[in-house]
Amino acid sequence: MVKKMRNSFQLILISMMVMGLCAASHAQSLEEVMKARGLSQEDILAAAKTYTPTGKIDEYVVFSSGGQSGQVIVYGVPSMRILKYIAVFTPEPWQGYGYGDVESMAILDQGRIRGRKITWGDTHHPAISETNGEYDGQYLFINDKANPRVAVIDLKTFSTVQIVPNPIMKSEHGAAFVTPNTEYIIEASQYPAPFTNDYVPLEEFNEKYRGAMTMWKFSRKKGKILPDNSFSVELPPYAQDLSDAGKKISEGWVFTNSFNSERYIGGFGPGNTKFKDRLPHEAGMSSKDTDYLHMINLKTAEKLFKEGKYTMINDHAVISIETMVANDALFLIPEPKSPHGVMIDPTGQYLTVSGKLDTHVSVYDFNKMMKLIEGKTYDGKDPYDIPILSMQESLHGQVELGLGPLHTQYDKEKGIAYTSLFVDSAIARWDFLNLKLIEKVPIHYNVGHLVSAEGDTVSPDGKYLVALNKLAIDRFQQVGPLHPQNHQLIDISAGRPMSVIYDMPLPLGEPHYAVMIKADKLKPIKRFKQKWFKNRVKPGRESVIREGNKVTVNTTIIRSHYSPEIIEVNVGDEITWNVTNLERAQDETHGFTVDLYNINGSLEPGETNTFKFTADKSGVFPFYCTEFCSALHLEMMGYLLVKP
Amino acid sequence: MVKKMRNSFQLILISMMVMGLCAASHAQSLEEVMKARGLSQEDILAAAKTYTPTGKIDEYVVFSSGGQSGQVIVYGVPSMRILKYIAVFTPEPWQGYGYGDVESMAILDQGRIRGRKITWGDTHHPAISETNGEYDGQYLFINDKANPRVAVIDLKTFSTVQIVPNPIMKSEHGAAFVTPNTEYIIEASQYPAPFTNDYVPLEEFNEKYRGAMTMWKFSRKKGKILPDNSFSVELPPYAQDLSDAGKKISEGWVFTNSFNSERYIGGFGPGNTKFKDRLPHEAGMSSKDTDYLHMINLKTAEKLFKEGKYTMINDHAVISIETMVANDALFLIPEPKSPHGVMIDPTGQYLTVSGKLDTHVSVYDFNKMMKLIEGKTYDGKDPYDIPILSMQESLHGQVELGLGPLHTQYDKEKGIAYTSLFVDSAIARWDFLNLKLIEKVPIHYNVGHLVSAEGDTVSPDGKYLVALNKLAIDRFQQVGPLHPQNHQLIDISAGRPMSVIYDMPLPLGEPHYAVMIKADKLKPIKRFKQKWFKNRVKPGRESVIREGNKVTVNTTIIRSHYSPEIIEVNVGDEITWNVTNLERAQDETHGFTVDLYNINGSLEPGETNTFKFTADKSGVFPFYCTEFCSALHLEMMGYLLVKP
Repeated sequence: MVKKMRNSFQLILISMMVMGLCAASHAQSLEEVMKARGLSQEDILAAAKTYTPTGKIDEYVVFSSGGQSGQVIVYGVPSMRILKYIAVFTPEPWQGYGYGDVESMAILDQGRIRGRKITWGDTHHPAISETNGEYDGQYLFINDKANPRVAVIDLKTFSTVQIVPNPIMKSEHGAAFVTPNTEYIIEASQYPAPFTNDYVPLEEFNEKYRGAMTMWKFSRKKGKILPDNSFSVELPPYAQDLSDAGKKISEGWVFTNSFNSERYIGGFGPGNTKFKDRLPHEAGMSSKDTDYLHMINLKTAEKLFKEGKYTMINDHAVISIETMVANDALFLIPEPKSPHGVMIDPTGQYLTVSGKLDTHVSVYDFNKMMKLIEGKTYDGKDPYDIPILSMQESLHGQVELGLGPLHTQYDKEKGIAYTSLFVDSAIARWDFLNLKLIEKVPIHYNVGHLVSAEGDTVSPDGKYLVALNKLAIDRFQQVGPLHPQNHQLIDISAGRPMSVIYDMPLPLGEPHYAVMIKADKLKPIKRFKQKWFKNRVKPGRESVIREGNKVTVNTTIIRSHYSPEIIEVNVGDEITWNVTNLERAQDETHGFTVDLYNINGSLEPGETNTFKFTADKSGVFPFYCTEFCSALHLEMMGYLLVKP
Repeated sequence: MVKKMRNSFQLILISMMVMGLCAASHAQSLEEVMKARGLSQEDILAAAKTYTPTGKIDEYVVFSSGGQSGQVIVYGVPSMRILKYIAVFTPEPWQGYGYGDVESMAILDQGRIRGRKITWGDTHHPAISETNGEYDGQYLFINDKANPRVAVIDLKTFSTVQIVPNPIMKSEHGAAFVTPNTEYIIEASQYPAPFTNDYVPLEEFNEKYRGAMTMWKFSRKKGKILPDNSFSVELPPYAQDLSDAGKKISEGWVFTNSFNSERYIGGFGPGNTKFKDRLPHEAGMSSKDTDYLHMINLKTAEKLFKEGKYTMINDHAVISIETMVANDALFLIPEPKSPHGVMIDPTGQYLTVSGKLDTHVSVYDFNKMMKLIEGKTYDGKDPYDIPILSMQESLHGQVELGLGPLHTQYDKEKGIAYTSLFVDSAIARWDFLNLKLIEKVPIHYNVGHLVSAEGDTVSPDGKYLVALNKLAIDRFQQVGPLHPQNHQLIDISAGRPMSVIYDMPLPLGEPHYAVMIKADKLKPIKRFKQKWFKNRVKPGRESVIREGNKVTVNTTIIRSHYSPEIIEVNVGDEITWNVTNLERAQDETHGFTVDLYNINGSLEPGETNTFKFTADKSGVFPFYCTEFCSALHLEMMGYLLVKP
């Protein structure tokens, strides 16, 4: 009875804390400031044009997860204009992704899990490929939390080229993070589950449910993940959270933190008969004061994998906790409860962890941790026999920043970091070497992650920071009960106070996490070369070829006609339709859609797409170009006639 | 031989004209202007903050078609920030539209054509509901060109509530346009086809292929289109293009223009054996100098429908050309070839038509047209016996504006109009009463439609205009071969020259057409009332109820837990899962996803969703909240256990 009361009281306390949202005040109006400066409306207009210039190019590009949209959002900084969505896990008609085109259909098909076609993803953490710990702008990786998968995006074309499902996880979170030369892409599980696809009752949670970290081997040459050269490390059933790869002095190690090291199972409410009347997860999973930071020696794990010291589960190599521990490759360090991420500083020496229910950020010193490991100075072991390092002896120190500290990014200036404060609705600028808070700026409202320019690399740029705020409420025109997110641009130039420059509503998904790269590192192609496509149709070689009930149509398109324009087939014919865009002018995209057949292609200059479908309904079906390509765009059409 | 040469020459000429893109010069840099004004960087920053204010609300809201994304884009003016995408024809996971929620699945299912599930749309023309010819901000309508359908969006919630397929068209374009009190939503076909779903050879094009205009009856009370009270008017197989409904003195009439009144069939290229070596559509469809503006008496058509003077085709009432002509309800007037739209001025008297291959815009006078009709003064008849009015006698006059005139919107100031010039890449401001060009401003590049504030209502606002440009090329950071579109904001305030204020990349679809409404006319709800949902789950009434293999789960959610959290079922069970978001705080959305089951819901405060699926795979499936709702958001999860 006493225990129950204590738990209920704790629940109320937590609820009060986490529900205490939106207390921050509004940004001060700047119109008075302008008036005081003696600026007219004309001045303001001219100034605004200079600041958000037409025809100018942004200095930085942000890749933001598209959250539950399953896509990636690309926008410029400082203009805060959205430049592109990259279709990843969700079919996207306007890009011709998953609407009949054989290539994109095959990529989406790679994402099947247990045979099921999954048509969305909960994208979380994008990562840019790195060379020597610097963003190199070649590839982007992103994960799907709901259906554990990782995707590879080629930044030459800004398009998805591979989707790899995780063979042993049922849910994940701590992906994608890359090692300093993109040898591996790291993926950590979230909610523990059996590695197999079997039903295992929750009574066997401690024994049979597991976490894991998968090390996906990336081949830069092939531009692909190599599943056969990849492996996982078994972890305890603590809900692993966010990961990071060591850099410089900590290179070769990878880290992930966790929550619910309590291994609590809920059941809250009258609906569940088995675990009836237990406290909800949010209370039970945060009852201890600390969870565990996991420290994994990737070099050793890689060696163990190469030596065959693993078990195959679902055709995937898994190194056991026992093997990892026996080879001094897995350690735990207590961290304040319910953290969201472990962020390694540019030198690789300091690791910042923020327990969201603690007002402090904790700075761990990699050198101290290594010294404990080298001396085998352990503070006991966890129930899975993993050695625990002393939190106190691993810490460089702690700093009180405010309520709900969540995520940290770094500045160009030595020792300067920025941490988002979810409950406070603020960004803190602080000194992680001298352990002191410098200043805070209010944001609107409830910031999750934040991103500074190249802020998780070995050489951050400073200058700009974006707060990824969860609530927008009163910041924009009301558009119904579902509000946009609010990404706020903050000026973090050295020598002046932080200042919110811009509110950017995000109308897609809940953009969870973002990375910001110097724009000039990106080297996308401007057009495709026709010869890159084996099915390309050369001008003059257009044709309709029939073999039995298989019909191949070879079509070219150029402003503003298809060739051929009239196609007659029989009902039941299997159509393979190769379409080549002959344009050489940049941006001269043509579309290709066949009415009723759920087909839509977007053909960039030089590109060939192949569409396959069965002409299963007879009748008259116009096909046409869906891009306004010229003054005679509407005339760019043809008829598919299907005879009964 | 001579004929062929002439045609080839014509083709080259047209190609040169339509391909002459991007000739416009860049906007002048404004930094010098700023320097000349003696403004510092600090001034500019402060000014920019005032101009793009944080925490300020836009004066206007634009509803733009999302093109081939199948959605609607909502953005603010003058901030040019995207506030929302409204999911319409394409499933959208982050809004929980088409991912297991019974209500949205049913709406998408209404969009089936001949039984086929179609998962995208080529949205073209949004229309806001009107009262007395003024936008009233209650409903939005939008069409799908590829799979002829019209959707209804309720602006109380900014969500799609109905999709209605067109029963007789195979392709459409001239929708959605509303009558001045939203009695009807107009939908005109594009590429002619048989009304039935039969195969009809192209040799019978003139006799059996048809265009049409459908008049969808809208019930404001029900917030729905009433298909049984709706009907179509048969039209000749000219490719009908864009429509508009008369207003004030022309109220009761509706208009649509057309191209390919040549009734030309292509076949270009060696692939087609039947119509081999004919010129492509773009040449053959633009060989005549004029096409036909169609003038339809809606009042008479409505009367004929009510009198039963129609034929049922595919269970839909179609009034024949013959009946329309016999009742003086259908007329044609020549218009310059290949136009894109007929735009009626605020008084209802003047109709602007621009043939894209003519340098003039043509202003027709409704009074003159009516006089010809009343006097039965016809200039002959077309092959379908439709009376033709004289172009010369219908015209108020013509004005030379530039290359590729396309679409016109109106100003607050009497007689002032704005027309987009596709080939010129410019916007023209001109006087349609006194028939003179006032000025042009270059845009970047190749503008299709344009929109001015309430510019197609009986009382336009002036002030702002947005050019919907098709090409962006060098305006933004390169993001691969597929570029964004570019919506440019233009200051059209009276008394000063037009000026491009802002370049806005549009990263979704090819936004084809837009409407701009005064923001304060929109009255969306801020949250749902729980009692609006018949399946709502009341707190304390959570349950899991089994009847045979049917399991109903009644779940409530509130920061930050599901109740119940553990659900055990047997493989093969049919699950009905009611989920109620108990939050009352604005913007406190919770998500609901079940791993692997391709289910994702977005539950706004007060909302109930019902998810139905068969638990067809055994195993352990975490479910969790996909919205970062509180500091303990990650703990907001449960397990669905499916026993074998």
